[in-house]
Amino acid sequence: MAPTSTALNTSSSTESTSSTHSIEHLISDRAKNRSFKHFAANADENAPKNFKPHPKPLALSFGRPNAQFFPVKKITVELDHYPFQDTIFENEVIEEQDLVVIDKFPTDKNDLGAGEALQYGDVSGLPNFQKFLREFVETIHKPANSEWAITATNGSGEGLNKVADALINPGDIVLFEEFTFSPFGNNVRNVGGITVPIKLNFKATEGADIDIKYLSHLLDNWNDIYPEYKDRKPKAFYTIPTCQNPTGLTQSTATRKAIYDLASKHDFIILEDDPYGYLTLPPFQKPNKETLVSENSLQIDDYLENHLPKSYLQFDTEGRVIRIETFSKVFAPGLRLGFLVANKKIVEVVKKYSSIVTRAPSGPSQLILLNVIQQRFGGIKGWLQWILRMRLAYAHRRNVLIDSIVSSSAYEKEYIKVISCDAGMFASLLVNFPEGTTDIVDKINLLNYKFLEKGVTVVLGHKMSVNPEFSEPNANFLRLSYAPLDKDEELTEAGKRLGEAVEEFFENGFTY
Amino acid sequence: MAPTSTALNTSSSTESTSSTHSIEHLISDRAKNRSFKHFAANADENAPKNFKPHPKPLALSFGRPNAQFFPVKKITVELDHYPFQDTIFENEVIEEQDLVVIDKFPTDKNDLGAGEALQYGDVSGLPNFQKFLREFVETIHKPANSEWAITATNGSGEGLNKVADALINPGDIVLFEEFTFSPFGNNVRNVGGITVPIKLNFKATEGADIDIKYLSHLLDNWNDIYPEYKDRKPKAFYTIPTCQNPTGLTQSTATRKAIYDLASKHDFIILEDDPYGYLTLPPFQKPNKETLVSENSLQIDDYLENHLPKSYLQFDTEGRVIRIETFSKVFAPGLRLGFLVANKKIVEVVKKYSSIVTRAPSGPSQLILLNVIQQRFGGIKGWLQWILRMRLAYAHRRNVLIDSIVSSSAYEKEYIKVISCDAGMFASLLVNFPEGTTDIVDKINLLNYKFLEKGVTVVLGHKMSVNPEFSEPNANFLRLSYAPLDKDEELTEAGKRLGEAVEEFFENGFTY
Repeated sequence: MAPTSTALNTSSSTESTSSTHSIEHLISDRAKNRSFKHFAANADENAPKNFKPHPKPLALSFGRPNAQFFPVKKITVELDHYPFQDTIFENEVIEEQDLVVIDKFPTDKNDLGAGEALQYGDVSGLPNFQKFLREFVETIHKPANSEWAITATNGSGEGLNKVADALINPGDIVLFEEFTFSPFGNNVRNVGGITVPIKLNFKATEGADIDIKYLSHLLDNWNDIYPEYKDRKPKAFYTIPTCQNPTGLTQSTATRKAIYDLASKHDFIILEDDPYGYLTLPPFQKPNKETLVSENSLQIDDYLENHLPKSYLQFDTEGRVIRIETFSKVFAPGLRLGFLVANKKIVEVVKKYSSIVTRAPSGPSQLILLNVIQQRFGGIKGWLQWILRMRLAYAHRRNVLIDSIVSSSAYEKEYIKVISCDAGMFASLLVNFPEGTTDIVDKINLLNYKFLEKGVTVVLGHKMSVNPEFSEPNANFLRLSYAPLDKDEELTEAGKRLGEAVEEFFENGFTY
Repeated sequence: MAPTSTALNTSSSTESTSSTHSIEHLISDRAKNRSFKHFAANADENAPKNFKPHPKPLALSFGRPNAQFFPVKKITVELDHYPFQDTIFENEVIEEQDLVVIDKFPTDKNDLGAGEALQYGDVSGLPNFQKFLREFVETIHKPANSEWAITATNGSGEGLNKVADALINPGDIVLFEEFTFSPFGNNVRNVGGITVPIKLNFKATEGADIDIKYLSHLLDNWNDIYPEYKDRKPKAFYTIPTCQNPTGLTQSTATRKAIYDLASKHDFIILEDDPYGYLTLPPFQKPNKETLVSENSLQIDDYLENHLPKSYLQFDTEGRVIRIETFSKVFAPGLRLGFLVANKKIVEVVKKYSSIVTRAPSGPSQLILLNVIQQRFGGIKGWLQWILRMRLAYAHRRNVLIDSIVSSSAYEKEYIKVISCDAGMFASLLVNFPEGTTDIVDKINLLNYKFLEKGVTVVLGHKMSVNPEFSEPNANFLRLSYAPLDKDEELTEAGKRLGEAVEEFFENGFTY
């Protein structure tokens, strides 16, 4: 299971071309050995020599109902111009109607109609949807390796499970940022994999960062540091490089390059999970809707060039990056729609898995998403424009919440510190226990009951740790989401309750 | 892995009550040992004694975007009154408009709105959808065991995979009808299970049937018949009891009861897959649209009482039946929406699997389906009324195809026989090779190239066999679907091409 080192030490990753590396040895045996063939497929390999197939055969084969059996004639979707049209953007009235009309059988063959979306479809997504995804990735992320392919998923969580199946043999190791979207650990364990955390470098004023020296040392000295995993170096590193969940960390371009070089040297896959990376926010300021809306001038090209962090795909000369995206955070989670970009060989085995296990994503979800993006937003750039409006709405909500927190006496007394609040929908706070405080996890669990008593729910950072023992020294942080609440007043009140809870807890000697 | 016999031999299945049997030993170790807990869930078990939770906590916990971030304001669905409104039911004009209007936030809290459907939802389905499914099952299938539960799936294929995960340990045996929806074999093998076919009793004039004596003998003498699977008696029997795919078999009530008693005696689970069981058809007659439409008088109560075959759930006193349904065939496959009914213990482990692996089904799919059924069809009975209209459309299409086939000289010369055509969307034919013909599989494969040359695609029965060697004696049948083609004329032409291909093949000495 140890990587073969021959190909790895002879060429540097940035010089190599896409064809010199193979990643097939990193695919799981399970995925490699799976086969799928539909019973209604007709093979040609054993055809008689004089066989001439009819150009237009009539199908009595598939158990696929004719679209005329689907009761739907037409679907119309009425849309908003702004997220929080009625609240944050209440004064931004646009007169034109926003109607997206979707016929069962559109006259323009390039359109995705309801008849097609309601039919059985490709496990990788309907043809128009796949086309959109390819253009999206080409326009925005420009993969360095030409051997990439794409497949739709039923959202990121489900996409991550597909990746776990594709890569992990029982006993294989996956590296995780010590605090992370921990549910992916379930997927890794579900196929017999082992999760190993790597340290984050927490800085009370600058957020968290990945310590490249630490990671490099770990990989160079794997057998000494993890004798129990001797000769089983990590097969993959799972990272959320932008707006890391829950720490808020956004990796610099230099960090990404350095990590990619380590992946190349030590032959592992980078799993880039990026659910809300498009929503990097401007810095915190006192809430002011008018100022914010007037800032609605960021141009798409400027945004793509100067604001959006670079995907690992842009450094991926060797085809060892898997990027996992979702429409959950930028459109709606209920769609259960996302996609992944990876080396063709990996996408091939993922498709086989989908054919057998999950089947295709929902047609109505693809139908609504694609028609809204194309008819209402006019394609990729218009869609990004909507995301930027959403970014402003998140910035405002963040401003309201953080303003409430920094106005609290708990904050003034330095019981809490804001360590990050420029991530998509999360801010993270440190609970600033006096030096030498012991039993941090117990204390923060107790504090949580104070939160629940005061009437505010948060996520305790340590609940998102890969290994609670390993991460105990950094267990004193909280993740706050400004995504779910309905109103500004609720965000303000939630911040106030949080401050009061902390203050009481500190001033009661850390007892409930 | 052998069943514990204590509880089984002391009570007959039909006398036992729902609480006397446990099926937990039939759940896979994998499923039993899986745990799932969300990092944002707050536990109460370790709360301080004086803990008083706030009655209305404000959520800063979940990464769940507020519904105001979803651009959708309203969805309108325009509907047909009849399937094939423009063709089969062209003269059945109904003046009223069929508009289903779905608001983002409906004023009636009982309605499912777009805002809720676009949000993260329960892996078992949105509350309203689950409620509908429970009522549907109670009204139509009346489970004998009160300990049943329901969970939504992403269609039957995906539901079947969930069942395979829930039950099968590596090395476990699942019995299959020898010809079947063979893709489920992939799911069984995917978790290390073994598929074992059971003989169908083929009768050239009456279709196929399950031979209870054969099955009973097999189970009583398992270790002798399958020494390689000694002491590993089957854990489950996978059956499509109504409109069996591909044979067209519909089990009689007596057969179902007898099979259930065997399941009880030999302690296995019955997996009842029923994708188009609602579409049992009236007998073949010469196509005549007017007559057919005038037959549109079957009342729902009559249909439920006298036409719809009984689900195994009605005999399931012990909670050992899993019923798998889908909306693919009766609404639209692109929804990727179905459900399964099973013992609560099984549904519990399925939910854990869903939470980790597949996540929830699509919100827009649930939204459209449920609102159409409730707003347009007025609930379960109106929905069944639509299914009966669909049944008429299938009956007509079946009449057109079969009429074309029985009018062919191949049929007149008895080269082909229709063995079943009252199944939902499939007819099955026997290719009537002369007695003593050898190499049936090779010959039928060769005949298939004749079909492709003439321009008609069919499914060769043997491609749907669980074990081709085992089923070679019955390899001479074809499955024909009258579901996908667009027009009556195409069905007629397809039947004609099929007849011509068979005739040429027979009269050329079974050579291409």
